[in-house]
Amino acid sequence: MPKPTPSSPTPTDKFTFGLWTVGWQARDPFGDATRPALDPVEIVTRLAELGAYGVTFHDDDLIPFGSDDKARQQHIRRFQDALARTGMKVPMATTNLFTHPVFKDGAFTSNDRDIRRFALRKVMRNLDLAAELGASTYVFWGGREGAEYDGAKDVRVALDRFREAMNTLTSYCKDRGYRLRFALEPKPNEPRGDILLPTIGHALAFIGTLQHPEMVGLNPEVGHEQMAGLNFVHGIAQALWHGKLFHIDLNGQRGIKYDQDLVFGHGDLLNAFFLVDLLENAGYDGPRHFDYKPSRTEDITGVWASAAANMRTYRLLRDRAAAYRADPEVQQAMAAARIGQLAEPTLGKGESIADLLRDRSAFESFDANAAGARGSHYVRLNQLAVEHLLGAR
Amino acid sequence: MPKPTPSSPTPTDKFTFGLWTVGWQARDPFGDATRPALDPVEIVTRLAELGAYGVTFHDDDLIPFGSDDKARQQHIRRFQDALARTGMKVPMATTNLFTHPVFKDGAFTSNDRDIRRFALRKVMRNLDLAAELGASTYVFWGGREGAEYDGAKDVRVALDRFREAMNTLTSYCKDRGYRLRFALEPKPNEPRGDILLPTIGHALAFIGTLQHPEMVGLNPEVGHEQMAGLNFVHGIAQALWHGKLFHIDLNGQRGIKYDQDLVFGHGDLLNAFFLVDLLENAGYDGPRHFDYKPSRTEDITGVWASAAANMRTYRLLRDRAAAYRADPEVQQAMAAARIGQLAEPTLGKGESIADLLRDRSAFESFDANAAGARGSHYVRLNQLAVEHLLGAR
Amino acid sequence: MPKPTPSSPTPTDKFTFGLWTVGWQARDPFGDATRPALDPVEIVTRLAELGAYGVTFHDDDLIPFGSDDKARQQHIRRFQDALARTGMKVPMATTNLFTHPVFKDGAFTSNDRDIRRFALRKVMRNLDLAAELGASTYVFWGGREGAEYDGAKDVRVALDRFREAMNTLTSYCKDRGYRLRFALEPKPNEPRGDILLPTIGHALAFIGTLQHPEMVGLNPEVGHEQMAGLNFVHGIAQALWHGKLFHIDLNGQRGIKYDQDLVFGHGDLLNAFFLVDLLENAGYDGPRHFDYKPSRTEDITGVWASAAANMRTYRLLRDRAAAYRADPEVQQAMAAARIGQLAEPTLGKGESIADLLRDRSAFESFDANAAGARGSHYVRLNQLAVEHLLGAR
Amino acid sequence: MPKPTPSSPTPTDKFTFGLWTVGWQARDPFGDATRPALDPVEIVTRLAELGAYGVTFHDDDLIPFGSDDKARQQHIRRFQDALARTGMKVPMATTNLFTHPVFKDGAFTSNDRDIRRFALRKVMRNLDLAAELGASTYVFWGGREGAEYDGAKDVRVALDRFREAMNTLTSYCKDRGYRLRFALEPKPNEPRGDILLPTIGHALAFIGTLQHPEMVGLNPEVGHEQMAGLNFVHGIAQALWHGKLFHIDLNGQRGIKYDQDLVFGHGDLLNAFFLVDLLENAGYDGPRHFDYKPSRTEDITGVWASAAANMRTYRLLRDRAAAYRADPEVQQAMAAARIGQLAEPTLGKGESIADLLRDRSAFESFDANAAGARGSHYVRLNQLAVEHLLGAR
Repeated sequence: MPKPTPSSPTPTDKFTFGLWTVGWQARDPFGDATRPALDPVEIVTRLAELGAYGVTFHDDDLIPFGSDDKARQQHIRRFQDALARTGMKVPMATTNLFTHPVFKDGAFTSNDRDIRRFALRKVMRNLDLAAELGASTYVFWGGREGAEYDGAKDVRVALDRFREAMNTLTSYCKDRGYRLRFALEPKPNEPRGDILLPTIGHALAFIGTLQHPEMVGLNPEVGHEQMAGLNFVHGIAQALWHGKLFHIDLNGQRGIKYDQDLVFGHGDLLNAFFLVDLLENAGYDGPRHFDYKPSRTEDITGVWASAAANMRTYRLLRDRAAAYRADPEVQQAMAAARIGQLAEPTLGKGESIADLLRDRSAFESFDANAAGARGSHYVRLNQLAVEHLLGAR
Repeated sequence: MPKPTPSSPTPTDKFTFGLWTVGWQARDPFGDATRPALDPVEIVTRLAELGAYGVTFHDDDLIPFGSDDKARQQHIRRFQDALARTGMKVPMATTNLFTHPVFKDGAFTSNDRDIRRFALRKVMRNLDLAAELGASTYVFWGGREGAEYDGAKDVRVALDRFREAMNTLTSYCKDRGYRLRFALEPKPNEPRGDILLPTIGHALAFIGTLQHPEMVGLNPEVGHEQMAGLNFVHGIAQALWHGKLFHIDLNGQRGIKYDQDLVFGHGDLLNAFFLVDLLENAGYDGPRHFDYKPSRTEDITGVWASAAANMRTYRLLRDRAAAYRADPEVQQAMAAARIGQLAEPTLGKGESIADLLRDRSAFESFDANAAGARGSHYVRLNQLAVEHLLGAR
Repeated sequence: MPKPTPSSPTPTDKFTFGLWTVGWQARDPFGDATRPALDPVEIVTRLAELGAYGVTFHDDDLIPFGSDDKARQQHIRRFQDALARTGMKVPMATTNLFTHPVFKDGAFTSNDRDIRRFALRKVMRNLDLAAELGASTYVFWGGREGAEYDGAKDVRVALDRFREAMNTLTSYCKDRGYRLRFALEPKPNEPRGDILLPTIGHALAFIGTLQHPEMVGLNPEVGHEQMAGLNFVHGIAQALWHGKLFHIDLNGQRGIKYDQDLVFGHGDLLNAFFLVDLLENAGYDGPRHFDYKPSRTEDITGVWASAAANMRTYRLLRDRAAAYRADPEVQQAMAAARIGQLAEPTLGKGESIADLLRDRSAFESFDANAAGARGSHYVRLNQLAVEHLLGAR
Repeated sequence: MPKPTPSSPTPTDKFTFGLWTVGWQARDPFGDATRPALDPVEIVTRLAELGAYGVTFHDDDLIPFGSDDKARQQHIRRFQDALARTGMKVPMATTNLFTHPVFKDGAFTSNDRDIRRFALRKVMRNLDLAAELGASTYVFWGGREGAEYDGAKDVRVALDRFREAMNTLTSYCKDRGYRLRFALEPKPNEPRGDILLPTIGHALAFIGTLQHPEMVGLNPEVGHEQMAGLNFVHGIAQALWHGKLFHIDLNGQRGIKYDQDLVFGHGDLLNAFFLVDLLENAGYDGPRHFDYKPSRTEDITGVWASAAANMRTYRLLRDRAAAYRADPEVQQAMAAARIGQLAEPTLGKGESIADLLRDRSAFESFDANAAGARGSHYVRLNQLAVEHLLGAR
């Protein structure tokens, strides 16, 4: 007898998808498209039926590059109609600064100044639309800001230009009164050999140098950090610690290789479990945004099945994580691992450095060997997590 | 006829080595020591003969863990005598917070509060010695601050404790008037499954949250960034851009695998070439510190040969990089790649956003296709670098 | 209410452990031992209580390197007594050719001929013991057969020596009438920069060149293939296809990094699920051998908890895989993916090449576009697997 | 004063290029083409001018997919004319079994039998052309033979089909009297999540199961093995040891990431040096085939510059390797490392196992500690290689 499955997703789950995700035509470096283009209106409609909360878009997903103003307005109107009809939201938008050959050496950090100016203008035009559509987050994935060759870019100068671009664009939004927050999306490589601001950490540090750092945060993506072998849960925790988790891209990646963009949970499942546990417990209330690609082997039926799979896996992991936290045996195991003790400051309330130096129990009479013999009991705790994940407790 | 080799290294090259590098006994996870312990005095003497500028140390390299005060003073005195006799400097020191079992779950972020207190005291004691020996940099490698299991640490809480430790220790130095600067050394993993502050970027971001950020910078290590597949030259450039390259660990690594600590240049040689080019041109004037391990296959003769190899390779790369920069053909290739144009601000002097929006050449009449057809000529430039590196130009 | 957990493991599960696994003292490249040595007798006793089927050993796990004959006999006798008392089996044994400095440059492929001879003799002595204890498999992990430097070994010559060693040792067994089969254990790197026969594939190819290929197969290890980013399930499938899966090492690894030796399932859980599915369905009837290390943070309680966790996870995955195979919805999804069609030969029964060339439907009138538009429905099938793994169906 | 550069390449260097290399239009997973299509006739002409020996092709490079017979013949004729005019050879050809959507789930191992039949016929047609154009090697890169999901393929069954395909095609050639040898090209992943026969080793093992193993060897590619973190020099050495290096693809890759296809030497330069050293010393006399992609940032000038760069780097490395081998200091260092001793059989001429067992010096009286203390002197040897590579000796 099959166990009861969770009821279907609803907009309160805040699941969102990019137009470019289900709309991906499955062209890859070695192969032609295997699926026809999807009309954004159809995407909005179908995702609404599946229980999504909203959609997100690059300018060129909605309005083909080079469209004239009239065509542009028609594309926008049809999209707005679909949103109105379905109740779908547009919480995030972004700019395509990577597909056209003009961006082959970057947009904000292209060596060519006229290309950098064009990029700024392209972003500004879409910021207007994002604001009009009610988006609260604007994502910057600088996929072409990088190099294949170490002599091709002076990274310090490139970061100057990157900062100039961000400062110009935050000013643009402030001037116009847009309530948009910016979210940088790091990636270590692909399509460039090395991309600037390659990880959550590098982007966080960069934000600290901006004119309006409070307006700028992150949009980390599961696969992008995992492509550098970094622990995504750790990265998200640090982003939260800095108050900078503005948005998140959920998907799946199977190790250090090309960017796979699998369905969420179809990669490192244990890490996905702890990610959902963290998001749900840390009070993250933004969209759960799936930035994935339906595999190139799939037809349109498979596209919608894959969209549903993302949401279903998230909900299952949310249930599993809640049960894990609620289990008294888990709580005992956490106590045995002394996890709570880490929240106690190392110096006592009001304790000065001089006090610490005077405390012989802290050093002179501290029995390091005895302390080193204590067990952490982490393996048992992790096994409890595995068993909760497997639905076995 | 052999080409003239560069003369031997001298202290003006500012080459330094950790006591633990040439002193490594070659114990690895699957094997016992293959070499006897080396007396720090012998290390100082031999490195001085080889042309080094100085040595660096962990507290426990110089004074075995658990030594009483008298033994401690004797170890220090012998070391000071050797320094005085040879003229060797101690520009950097650091703390061993990883070998003893007491640190198996971290030092500043151990779940056990008494271990965290012990760690702080252990650092304080060695800060005193570092200051006494004239060091200007104090390195923190938090190799045990991390986890194997995502549920074992709340990374946000761990970062609170890490910050508390750094704030306590900068205060300690300020109280005592020590002129030491701190340098964090990131590493993605090993010996922990995932280490906190895993890359240059994460550590830079963390520094921005400290009480005395001006006292804290980085000590990046070649192999540590390369273990995450990150471009070390890019990382160093970003560290320099933030004004945070306080110290550097040079060695070699052959891709994403366990930490190899090979001789500098015995890993990714092209990246090493551009690293030296960057350090020499960016005005970095700190020590060129080799943090490597003589391979376990080597006897003591091989140890000293490997120490010399580090310095010799650095000097050769320095010569190659200088010739590369001076070559008119390289300069022309850089101009053809429009590398200089990246230094021009994207907005003109005094240009406002309104001005940019009015500039139709920036967008409405910009010919993206024509701009996209321009060649970057990076491959030719890189080939010139390769040929200079090969000594073929 | 907790769900019913599977009953405890029993010897019919054929779970085995190396003495060196639970017995690991937790010395790592940056840290000293955190646990005392365990007596092999205690290991046998405790593992028997936990439901294991048997234990395996390196010669030096049982009899310290350099023991004299009398001590040797005592160690063996105590071990045999424990086996007799508990009913535990020794289905596999192996040789430690990596810990002692003498093997620092390899055993069978050391440049030093006398070391190669010593290695052969060390193996022969332990083959005698393995045969006496009733082992049916003898494992060869050539962890030191490799190099850090590409000029250090002529790999072709090293493979000659490796082959000579294997041929000598199969002859030795045949001469003595031992019914042992050999199992090579590949690993890409660590402790050497690059290890010979780095993957399942390389070892399979090597076996084909031996004098007695029928006596030699593989002992693949989860983490070793995953350290090269290779799919372990694919590797095991190819090993089975060649009839060469003689033994298997189960553990967990979290991506491309140092060898972690985590508990089975504490790494890539989805891949572990499909591995168990494959082993159980392919008729593999050898031991399920856990070659893992209890984390360095654990005390002795954690050691035994981690041993139990390996077995518990395997059993849970076995249940999940059986339910997955039995689910009619899964069977329908497999049919939709046309998985069964792959078993049909591409040429018809009796069809000649000439027939194929004459079949216009195969080429001239084949509608490639229509065929290319078919969906594979793999994402849905994978989602069903994820949901079975999560215990959600 | 610039050092004398080597004279230009000539056909005796046996440098070859795929039509698809310089002809790549620079479409990548995130971007549109940045360069126009190149006429194969122009490619032949320009490569001949640059000193190449020949070109290679996929069927669809020369004759667009779906061309009718008349168009097909015209394409072939123009190509043959260009070959005749320039003297360029076609030593290798191959089939495009990856671009068209029909191959999205594989060609020889597609679940769909009709697609497998179509694939066989497509290969047969191009084998005819390869034979007609005088090729001696026919390459099989099974880039689509693989899976993203572990449940999507039964790898054992897929290998059955792969073998059936190879057997059918070797029979086809034998029937027709073609003197073609087949060369399998392994790759671990991309465009599939995991590709069958992922490394040199897996492919070598597979060959051993074929009907006509003597007709089938390998075409290893630098970047493909390096994408799995494997040492390419080791892989080529093992391929040579098996007598299976039938062809080689030279290019550059910077670590474990997406397939970069950089210019040869623009990746791991030290490994490239030892590769050339091995090829030149092992008597490999096949083409030095560059399978690279001119970076997407390059215009047509950059395309030809990059083609020339491949050849120039190979020649420089060949010179450096020859000087390294000839240097008496290197020879002494090799002797000190006892490299020659590895060529001596471990058992003496005529020595039996019984003799070895009787030799007490091999075991009972062997001084393992003394032997373990010997130095291997590998670091010095590697440093000599680095210095030769740098042109500094």
